[in-house]
Amino acid sequence: MSQDYKDDCIFCQIVSGQVPCFKVYEDERTLAFADINPLIPGHTLVIPKAHFANLMEMSPGDLAAVHQASQKVARAILKATGMPGLVVMQLNGRAANQVVMHYHIHLVPRDKDKDGLNLAQWEPMPGDMKAIEAMAEKIRASL
Amino acid sequence: MSQDYKDDCIFCQIVSGQVPCFKVYEDERTLAFADINPLIPGHTLVIPKAHFANLMEMSPGDLAAVHQASQKVARAILKATGMPGLVVMQLNGRAANQVVMHYHIHLVPRDKDKDGLNLAQWEPMPGDMKAIEAMAEKIRASL
Repeated sequence: MSQDYKDDCIFCQIVSGQVPCFKVYEDERTLAFADINPLIPGHTLVIPKAHFANLMEMSPGDLAAVHQASQKVARAILKATGMPGLVVMQLNGRAANQVVMHYHIHLVPRDKDKDGLNLAQWEPMPGDMKAIEAMAEKIRASL
Repeated sequence: MSQDYKDDCIFCQIVSGQVPCFKVYEDERTLAFADINPLIPGHTLVIPKAHFANLMEMSPGDLAAVHQASQKVARAILKATGMPGLVVMQLNGRAANQVVMHYHIHLVPRDKDKDGLNLAQWEPMPGDMKAIEAMAEKIRASL
């Protein structure tokens, strides 16, 4: 069940421009922007512009579009960060740690022997906005 | 860079039928089957039948197909397991813990306050084959 815009949804507000973001990529159906609480530099979110709460609600067309956009952004993240690996993660329901109830894909670059990342704890830290902005620009330039 | 079949790839051998699996879903381009080292009951893999090492190599059409299949299977997993949440996870490169170098999506049902799952440790245990087979049948019946 989708709707184009949901008043109390922070990601809908980002899509509409009411709330700013560090944009990495955009096309007709999708938007990618820096996670401002990154697990690691380069952590990027890809969302459908239309509002769907989770995978179970997504339209097949938006699902294809958001993953095809993710592929482009993932390649750019690897190029921009120089990291050797990347995790694609998408959480459905509070029971799976989903926090914003607008479907989103996490793209998280990884170098597991060095990054000490704990994907289960999922404790993102408020990031340095200048550094996040600079990395978003670097990824965008790598597209 | 894809190829239809790669001799030394266990997932290609599953697609060709040389190696058995507990099949959950199949269509022209994709196959879903039970992970035999499940993190939790219901843990299922969805793969493209053609061989692509990872997201960066996937064709846009196969990428759409595999996620559209995942949506169907995810709904069936929630129905069959009764779990309230589900994680979609797809690992790229050994640096991100990818073990089988044939693109695959992990569908992992979750109830985070109860399941004690550690997605970062990623230490699947050899499963009880009878239980895995029974759950695969239950998911297939829920499609």
